[in-house]
Amino acid sequence: MTDTTPEQYEAVLDAAVAAAPVLAATTPTTRAALLRAVAGALEEHADALVPLAVADSHLPVPRLRGEVTRTAVQFEMFADALEEGSWLEAIIDLADAQARPAPRPDLRRMLVPLGPVAVFGASNFPFAFGVAGGDTASALAAGCPVVVKGHPGQPSLTDPYAAVVAEALRAAGAPEGVVGVVHGDDNARRLVQDPRIHAVGFTGSTAGGRALADLAAARPRPIPFYGELGSLNPVFVTPAAATARGEDIARAYVASATLGAGQFCTKPGLLFVPAGSGLDKTVVEAAGAVAAAPLLNERIRVGWRRELERLAAHPRVRLVAGSPADSGADSLEVSPVFLATDVADLEASGSQLLAECFGPFSLIVEYRDEAELLRAARLFDGNLTATVHGEGPDDQPAAALLDALRDSSGRLIWNGWPTGVAVSWAQHHGGPYPSTNSLHTSVGVTALRRFLRPVAYQDLPDPLLPEALRNTNPLGIPRRVNGRLTTEPIG
Amino acid sequence: MTDTTPEQYEAVLDAAVAAAPVLAATTPTTRAALLRAVAGALEEHADALVPLAVADSHLPVPRLRGEVTRTAVQFEMFADALEEGSWLEAIIDLADAQARPAPRPDLRRMLVPLGPVAVFGASNFPFAFGVAGGDTASALAAGCPVVVKGHPGQPSLTDPYAAVVAEALRAAGAPEGVVGVVHGDDNARRLVQDPRIHAVGFTGSTAGGRALADLAAARPRPIPFYGELGSLNPVFVTPAAATARGEDIARAYVASATLGAGQFCTKPGLLFVPAGSGLDKTVVEAAGAVAAAPLLNERIRVGWRRELERLAAHPRVRLVAGSPADSGADSLEVSPVFLATDVADLEASGSQLLAECFGPFSLIVEYRDEAELLRAARLFDGNLTATVHGEGPDDQPAAALLDALRDSSGRLIWNGWPTGVAVSWAQHHGGPYPSTNSLHTSVGVTALRRFLRPVAYQDLPDPLLPEALRNTNPLGIPRRVNGRLTTEPIG
Repeated sequence: MTDTTPEQYEAVLDAAVAAAPVLAATTPTTRAALLRAVAGALEEHADALVPLAVADSHLPVPRLRGEVTRTAVQFEMFADALEEGSWLEAIIDLADAQARPAPRPDLRRMLVPLGPVAVFGASNFPFAFGVAGGDTASALAAGCPVVVKGHPGQPSLTDPYAAVVAEALRAAGAPEGVVGVVHGDDNARRLVQDPRIHAVGFTGSTAGGRALADLAAARPRPIPFYGELGSLNPVFVTPAAATARGEDIARAYVASATLGAGQFCTKPGLLFVPAGSGLDKTVVEAAGAVAAAPLLNERIRVGWRRELERLAAHPRVRLVAGSPADSGADSLEVSPVFLATDVADLEASGSQLLAECFGPFSLIVEYRDEAELLRAARLFDGNLTATVHGEGPDDQPAAALLDALRDSSGRLIWNGWPTGVAVSWAQHHGGPYPSTNSLHTSVGVTALRRFLRPVAYQDLPDPLLPEALRNTNPLGIPRRVNGRLTTEPIG
Repeated sequence: MTDTTPEQYEAVLDAAVAAAPVLAATTPTTRAALLRAVAGALEEHADALVPLAVADSHLPVPRLRGEVTRTAVQFEMFADALEEGSWLEAIIDLADAQARPAPRPDLRRMLVPLGPVAVFGASNFPFAFGVAGGDTASALAAGCPVVVKGHPGQPSLTDPYAAVVAEALRAAGAPEGVVGVVHGDDNARRLVQDPRIHAVGFTGSTAGGRALADLAAARPRPIPFYGELGSLNPVFVTPAAATARGEDIARAYVASATLGAGQFCTKPGLLFVPAGSGLDKTVVEAAGAVAAAPLLNERIRVGWRRELERLAAHPRVRLVAGSPADSGADSLEVSPVFLATDVADLEASGSQLLAECFGPFSLIVEYRDEAELLRAARLFDGNLTATVHGEGPDDQPAAALLDALRDSSGRLIWNGWPTGVAVSWAQHHGGPYPSTNSLHTSVGVTALRRFLRPVAYQDLPDPLLPEALRNTNPLGIPRRVNGRLTTEPIG
C-alpha cells in the first residue's frame, strides 16, 4: 500500500467536490436505494473481503462475517431513516401578522448536507468502522461524499473494500467520486486541512485523534471533528449484586474484557467490587480458560507491552491473573491479564491507573463502603459507557451511582456489559471528552446529524422551496408546523 | 465598571457549578416557569432598564422598548418548547431478540444539559443579545447555569439587568448562581478556558470571537464555541424585479441598510443590481432622507472610520451617496454612505471589498448578465443571510441563484430584507464560517440543542430511568418508540 500521490489525491478530492451537489440533490428515497445497494454488495462480496480482513487483523472469520452483516445492517438502518424523513428536521412557521414583538414572515427550516467529509476508520473493526463503516454510512445518508483515509493496519482490505462500495454505488446510479480513498500520513494531515473537506469522522487513539482535531480547529475556516478516541468503561457492582451473583458477574466480566482480545473501545477497563467479595478465584479460573489470541498488528502489540508493563509495575496494584511479563512479549499472541487495587490506591495514583490499555487487560478495584463507591464514580473524565450491576431499582447505591456516572458517560448500562454496540435509533456512542464532540454520536441513526446543517427559507414561493418544505408535503415526512408535529399537508 | 476580582470570579463560578445539578434536575415544567418569571420581570422592569441601555448605546427608546419585549418573548418561546418536550429528543428502542446482527437490549436516549456555560453578548442588542439574550435563554432552558461576560459597551446596563434576572429566578425558586456575571478582559479568557465551563455562546466581531474560539479548542478538554461573528448579507435583484419595482427595492434597501444606524449583523452589505438599472438617484434621495444617528460607542466609531476610509479610497469603487470624509468623523453621529462597483471590479478586488463595515454603509454592485450574477452569488464564504428579489418562481435566474447561495447562507430570503430576525421554531441564525459552528443556530427554538448532549440508557429498570424515558411517558412528550413518533405510553 503506497501513499497516494499528489495527483491522485487531487483527483479524489475533485471528484468528491463534483459529486457533492449531485448527491445533495438526490431525494431521500433515491439515496436510501444507494445505501441499500451498498448493504447488498457487502453481503454479496463478504466471502472475498473477509479473508483480506483476516490477513490484516488476525480476527477470526465468524467475528468478521458477523461484522460484515452489522455493517450492511447499518446501511439499511440509515436507508430506513432517510425514508422516514424526521432526520431532515423540517420546521415550518407560517406567516403570522399577530406575532409579538413584530409580524412574522413565513419561515421554513430544514437540514442540508455539509459537503465532502473525511473519514478515518479504526483497525479493530475492519468493516464496521472501516471504509464503509458508520461514519461513511451516515455521511452518505446525509448526502455528503466521503474521502476515506486508508488505515495503515488494513493494507489488504482497504482498496478492495472501497472498490466493492464504489462499484455498488456506481451501479445504483450514484455520481462518480462519492466514495474515494487516500493513503499516507501526509495525506491524513492534508485531508483534515483541505478546504474542500467540511467535517471529519475519526475513530482511534486519543493522541492521534487530538492531533488531527487540533489541525481541524486551526484551519482558516474550522470544521467539526468527530473523534471517538477511547474509553475506560468502568463497571460498578453493588454489594447486593456481589452477594447475589458475584461469581456470575466475575465470569461475564472476564468474557467481556477479553472479547476480541480486549480490543474494543467499549472493553470494561475497570470493575469496582466490594472489598472482601473474594472474586479473585473466579477471575483466575475464567481468565485461565480464555484461549490466547492474536492482537491486530505489531503497532497494537508494542502499545500493549508498553502499557501493560507500566501498569503491572505500578506499586499500587497486585496481580490477579495472567502473566504481564509474557503476554504478547514474543508474538502477537496475548493471554489476558487482570490486576487489582483498591479505591484509596486508585485515588492516590492520580491518573496513572486511569489509562486505556488496549488488549485483554482489566483492573479490579475494591471499594470499602458506599462513600468510596460514589467517590470512585466521580473519578472519570469521559467514557463511552459506564455500567452498574445492582439488585433491582431499590438497591441502595444504584440510583446515586447512575446519577454520579451520567456526567461522564455516553451510555449507562444496567446489569449488562458494554461490549456490543447495538445499531439502532436510540443508540449513543460518544460522551464527554475524549470524544471530541460530545453533542453527537458515531453510532445509531442520530449519527446523521453530524454531517448536516440547518438552512431557513423566508417567504419563498412554494415551487422554489425544497420538496421537504413545500405545502403539499410531497415527501410525506413528519414536520413541525406552527409548533405541532404532523405529516399533514398545509392548506 | 471594574474588573471582577479573582475572589468574586471564583464565587460566581462555584455558584454556577453548585446550581448545575439542581437546575438539571428540575422538570421541564418547572424550568418553563422559571423562564416565564424572567419574561415577566423584564417587562416589569423595562422602564428602569431602558434608560440605562440608552446611556450605554445611544439607541432610541422605542427600539429598546421593543427589544425588551422581544427578549421576553424569547423566554416565553423557550418555555413553550420546554413544555412541548420534543427538545429532549427522547428515543426508545425496546429490546429485540430478533434484531440483526444480534439480539438488541432495551435502549433509551435523551438529551441532558452540558453544565455551566459562558455567554458573551453583543453591544448592538443590549437586551436581546445581552445578559438575558438568546444564548442565556436557551442555555437556561436546556438546564445549564450561565456565566455572562459583561460587555464593556454596556457599563450601565449589565449589572442592573443581571440583578433583575437573578431576582426573578430566585423569587421563582431557582437555585442561587443560575445566572452570574463577570467583568474584564482577563476574565473573558479565563472563562473560556475554565474547566467548569462546558460551552460558550458568543456574538461579536470575527477577530475577537475567533481568538476566544481558538482558546476553547486548545483546552485540555475542548468545548463547543458558538460564535456568531459577522456577515455581509448580500441581496440580489433579478433583471425582472429591477424593471418591475426597482425604485421600491432601492428605497427599502436604504431603509434596511441604515436601520439602527446600520448596526445589525443582518444589515444588507451588498446589493447586486443589473447594470444600467439607474437606481443611484433613488438611493441618493432615500439616503438623504435618513436622519443622522449615533453609533453605539467610541470603539464602534473608530472601527467605522477605519473601514469606511479604506473602502471609500478603494480604486474600484465610486461614491453614490453620503460623505465618507464626514460621517462620524467628529462625533458618534453618522449619516449613511453608499458606494458602488461592478462584479468585474468586485472579483478583481479579491476580498478587499468583501469585508463587513459595521454602520450605515452598503455597496451597490452592478452585474452585466446572468453569468456574472451567478458568479457573484459564489463569491461568499459564509453569511447569516442572502436575499433574492425576483418576479415569481418562474423568474429565470431565481432558482439558480437560490441554489448557488445555499452553500454559503444560513437563511435565504425572498423579496424581503434580512434585518429583523423573527424568534420562532423555524428560525435559523447561523451559517457557514465565520459562524463558528454551522450545525447550530443562535436564534430560534433549536438554539436549545447547543447546550445539550445525548445519553443512552441500556436495560435500566423503569424506576431508575429519567421521567422522559419511562414507560408511562409521565411528561406526555413526543418520543420515537421503535422508530415511530408517538406520545403514547409503552405497554
